[in-house]
Amino acid sequence: MRGLLIDLDGVVWEGDAAVPGAAEAVDWLQSSGLPYLFVTNTTSRPRRLIAAKLQQLGMPVTAEKILTPPVAACQWLASHSAGPLKLLVPDATREDFATITETTGDANDKVAAIVIGDIGSAWDYATLNGAFRMLMAEPAPALVALGMTRYWKAADGFRLDVAPFVKALEYAADCEAVVLGKPSADFFAIALRTIGCERGETLMIGDDISGDVSGAQKAGLKAALVRTGKFRERDLHGSVRPDAVLSSIADLPEWWAQNA
Amino acid sequence: MRGLLIDLDGVVWEGDAAVPGAAEAVDWLQSSGLPYLFVTNTTSRPRRLIAAKLQQLGMPVTAEKILTPPVAACQWLASHSAGPLKLLVPDATREDFATITETTGDANDKVAAIVIGDIGSAWDYATLNGAFRMLMAEPAPALVALGMTRYWKAADGFRLDVAPFVKALEYAADCEAVVLGKPSADFFAIALRTIGCERGETLMIGDDISGDVSGAQKAGLKAALVRTGKFRERDLHGSVRPDAVLSSIADLPEWWAQNA
Repeated sequence: MRGLLIDLDGVVWEGDAAVPGAAEAVDWLQSSGLPYLFVTNTTSRPRRLIAAKLQQLGMPVTAEKILTPPVAACQWLASHSAGPLKLLVPDATREDFATITETTGDANDKVAAIVIGDIGSAWDYATLNGAFRMLMAEPAPALVALGMTRYWKAADGFRLDVAPFVKALEYAADCEAVVLGKPSADFFAIALRTIGCERGETLMIGDDISGDVSGAQKAGLKAALVRTGKFRERDLHGSVRPDAVLSSIADLPEWWAQNA
Repeated sequence: MRGLLIDLDGVVWEGDAAVPGAAEAVDWLQSSGLPYLFVTNTTSRPRRLIAAKLQQLGMPVTAEKILTPPVAACQWLASHSAGPLKLLVPDATREDFATITETTGDANDKVAAIVIGDIGSAWDYATLNGAFRMLMAEPAPALVALGMTRYWKAADGFRLDVAPFVKALEYAADCEAVVLGKPSADFFAIALRTIGCERGETLMIGDDISGDVSGAQKAGLKAALVRTGKFRERDLHGSVRPDAVLSSIADLPEWWAQNA
């Protein structure tokens, strides 16, 4: 093995603190010369601020070493889709779409693709119906989803994330979205292309037995589970078998030396 | 055979006019003493006004002989669900829910079931998220859908109907809706119970090869296709085989005499 994809939340940091030993592991990673990329499903911040958080936590990582759904979407669009685009994405990630020519228009415009993310309370009937009408044009534009998270837990209770709206549009327009976020194989493919590695020679490291480990394995990668973040002991007793289990990312250099 | 279920739009009337011979067929039906019921997916009018339209077209049919998704929902709820209910239904059919005790409340209320229909532009994030939060309660309430129509064509273009919102909630809350409208077997079951007939002895008559004919056959009924309404010649060359094909409902008395 020679490539590494690494989840951030729960692996490199927990809340506002670095996982102990993470900075040393990242230091080892950078001096090793191995191709690597941080891969996260976050769409609540641009990757510029994700890089800033890493730097603040003592890890001098530049934005280009981070793959987020918006960044993956831009890469997918660059190679699959020519023409004006409709963006229904969180304001927080809009700067990551700076290379995109967005249609100014309404539902009667022809677009090459519609990109949808978690825009929360900005979803209303007119917005959803406008996207639907665009999808009903011929030829049908691509529907690109920034992940498939069902919901998240806010201070006042559950809140619908992007996936329910993707499902609504898929069913209404009889189409299938391109999902750019873990565990989608399209997302892992873009990560691999970014680091120039084949799937069989790349290890995904994550704290999520489903999105990280199972997703990566289904995409043909090897996957290691860390016992930090959202890890629970029962993750080891389900149907998904990680290729490795590390106490934390701090163990990565030693594990790599012995196993890769 | 001894029971009849009959679609309305495209079978008994087309637009604002009765299908020629429909009044005579209904007259025959009523004097025959056969158990029958009109079954429609309409949720844009209460069944009181549907009966009024039939009467206006010369067919003295009372409201109890008409099954609509809201009426079927009330029957399903009466036998499956005890407790306060949340109604997200078109104002036009609200009177058909007169027997229902609706919760006054917000998303933090516990409800026994949520009934959703095509409420059009009344869908917004808060409304959909409120329904989602109710569905996440334990024990989970039932999700009852007034049909599964994807969209309809308004004067200004396509408009999302109820189904996309059902799909959004099903995916978010990991549940399956009870669909009360053709082609759902649950809807046909309520129709059969209403007329006191078994499925094998009942004929569904409709103009929709999918919703009417295929739906009824999958629910175990016999089904006749009429060459009126949305009928197209190609309907006869697909995978669905009607048990009978009638020029129109006007042919029903003669067909019944020879075949039933």
